[in-house]
Amino acid sequence: MAAEIISVGTELLLGEIANTDAQYISECLSELGIDLYYHTVVGDNVGRLTDVLRLAKSRSDLIITTGGLGPTYDDLTKEVICQTLGLELELHEPSLERMRRFFADLGKEMTDNNLKQAYLPKGCTVFDNDWGTAPGCAAESDGVTVLMLPGPPRECRPMMRECAMPYLRNRSEKVIVSSNVRIFGMGESAVEAILREKMEHAENPTIAPYCKEGEVMLRVTAAAKTAAEAHAMLPPVTDELCAILGDVVYGVDVDSLESCVVSLLREKGLTMATAESCTGGLVAKRITDVAGSSDVFLGGVVSYANEVKRDVLDVPERLLKTYGAVSRPVAAYMARGAAKLTGADVAVSLTGIAGPGGGSAEKPVGLVYVGLCLRGATYVKELHLGGKTRDRAYVRTLAAGHALSMVQKAIRNA
Amino acid sequence: MAAEIISVGTELLLGEIANTDAQYISECLSELGIDLYYHTVVGDNVGRLTDVLRLAKSRSDLIITTGGLGPTYDDLTKEVICQTLGLELELHEPSLERMRRFFADLGKEMTDNNLKQAYLPKGCTVFDNDWGTAPGCAAESDGVTVLMLPGPPRECRPMMRECAMPYLRNRSEKVIVSSNVRIFGMGESAVEAILREKMEHAENPTIAPYCKEGEVMLRVTAAAKTAAEAHAMLPPVTDELCAILGDVVYGVDVDSLESCVVSLLREKGLTMATAESCTGGLVAKRITDVAGSSDVFLGGVVSYANEVKRDVLDVPERLLKTYGAVSRPVAAYMARGAAKLTGADVAVSLTGIAGPGGGSAEKPVGLVYVGLCLRGATYVKELHLGGKTRDRAYVRTLAAGHALSMVQKAIRNA
Repeated sequence: MAAEIISVGTELLLGEIANTDAQYISECLSELGIDLYYHTVVGDNVGRLTDVLRLAKSRSDLIITTGGLGPTYDDLTKEVICQTLGLELELHEPSLERMRRFFADLGKEMTDNNLKQAYLPKGCTVFDNDWGTAPGCAAESDGVTVLMLPGPPRECRPMMRECAMPYLRNRSEKVIVSSNVRIFGMGESAVEAILREKMEHAENPTIAPYCKEGEVMLRVTAAAKTAAEAHAMLPPVTDELCAILGDVVYGVDVDSLESCVVSLLREKGLTMATAESCTGGLVAKRITDVAGSSDVFLGGVVSYANEVKRDVLDVPERLLKTYGAVSRPVAAYMARGAAKLTGADVAVSLTGIAGPGGGSAEKPVGLVYVGLCLRGATYVKELHLGGKTRDRAYVRTLAAGHALSMVQKAIRNA
Repeated sequence: MAAEIISVGTELLLGEIANTDAQYISECLSELGIDLYYHTVVGDNVGRLTDVLRLAKSRSDLIITTGGLGPTYDDLTKEVICQTLGLELELHEPSLERMRRFFADLGKEMTDNNLKQAYLPKGCTVFDNDWGTAPGCAAESDGVTVLMLPGPPRECRPMMRECAMPYLRNRSEKVIVSSNVRIFGMGESAVEAILREKMEHAENPTIAPYCKEGEVMLRVTAAAKTAAEAHAMLPPVTDELCAILGDVVYGVDVDSLESCVVSLLREKGLTMATAESCTGGLVAKRITDVAGSSDVFLGGVVSYANEVKRDVLDVPERLLKTYGAVSRPVAAYMARGAAKLTGADVAVSLTGIAGPGGGSAEKPVGLVYVGLCLRGATYVKELHLGGKTRDRAYVRTLAAGHALSMVQKAIRNA
């Protein structure tokens, strides 16, 4: 099956937003094993949208559109699709009823222009929108399937996941499932070097690497006649990958390093605190991104100034003077100080030079010390995260990742 | 002039990355006043890329491609463009020399496959790549101009800005410049309601609203024969917008709310600290995102647990018991505690319910108190940031924005 995505919206052509809908849908199609050949972005313009749809119809079996399903006059995706593919629009009463309830719940009156959202192609499969007002749908014409999804990412993503994917899975003769092996602390090229042969020879399940924000993810995808069969094919492969890669794997099918840390803390009945200098609160922010982290995360100190390191975290003035704020002993004392101050079982500290200024020959930009204090025992790791193409934000992201990874490894064995 | 962007790369079709190159280029073209009608993404495939280029040639005057300029066999953008548009590739010695020096500086040998990057269309304008190895270029054929830029965003963005934009400006008879009015604390629809008529009637300069992450930006764009003339047209409009909107404008042509706070602190000779509960370090993180913030930001406390509020920030136990952690008096004491602990002139505190859990009828998700302590005087603001479509991350982002905005307003008049 050859697929393409058409995103409709002038805001995309003005560069106001990136086309993250297309990225998300692409990921989903890749998960389903559907070949995707094109993304197209076109504005809210009948003529150009018609041209784009005609071309898509001539070259693809599956067209997924995003955007242009709303109530205003420039929302015209559905109308142009129906005209181009010879489909008829009709009022879909249940969708109208849903919208009426939606507005009633908000205590607002539904204006007439909303009516248009309840008109859908005759005989289509309706995708209820639990995240907004405009329903989506799947329609067919001359052997081409068109899926229409709303544009706002908060609606498009869940509707792709919850409505479009099951629809596409149902039409497929095979079930495709996947598992993600999450890696921190080994670069993409190193992972590839170790696994190249295995990845090249893997046919079912397949193994594909993805890389972002200093992390690597291996997606293992299996296809089979039933879900049970497909699911059973994954663990042997993910287990083997975990065994080969060792402790750089922080989890399989987990959300993030921070969610993994929060789960482990909860499981072990431990509490945690932070003491951050160069990351300025980023580690605490990531931990508290996880809903429910208040069960295990007590708090932290952002000790940007030396006086805060000294007065709040009890780092001896002498050490700050002798070794400087960016040093192994200061990192150790910061972690210990945070643990003592909050009463946490485990505390992690970071002190380093995020750049762009502040570096020297002896202590270059990217030098970061991460301290870990676990039930009184302290350990410090020295990191060199600088590099020509690594800016302040990237150094901070990597440093925070290393800190979370250290915590995760330490408490896994605690 | 009708333009389109063609992004070449299978990684985009697999959903590994979002097409942020296209977004950035779109923004730049919008700044230049060039009409952009399409984005297309196509994989590293000769046949499909040829089809896409033929179509582009038939409908656009300006084609900008990203990706496929590198050294490997699947980098084929330049070759396919030349074949499709009837251009000839020839070795560009200065580019070869640059690459040789690039590798010599790294102490690495240049492998032969790199040679291919130095072949460029005969007679083209070469865009030197100071951010990587593959040069870009601008070539013409049958009245169509093609600009080729590398794919990695860290190369594509600066080359668009530094090479392609001057090239396009030179070909234009007018100079286009713009100013950005940055707004926090008023929604896009409210801004539009106030300014709709003004925006609709503005022809030169034009006024266009952009919205992201809870902020609104108005871009004022002027076109004139000379840069001086164009620049002179902006202040009367931006000044008027600032006057109409009042103190929801936090700056004109500034990077962000946090950079604005850091500049103001430096200007006034003030230092700052934070005390965060629901935002868990996000405000400190944003402040320290700004390079050089260590001049004015002393540090902060992430007081997630009540014990940390009590023991580190000196919030009286009695208040925590009587009013709860999410309350006006606790916010006030948190700000005061952070100021006292660090010796900062100004401290901001946040305590609230980010969700999804933890809300009640009395204290719903989205209830946030922001405390501000400026030289001993304390002020608390109550915010209601919850809503059906607002998740934990969005509530935290908005809360952090309000805290930074409060600091900015307070010290502007300090």
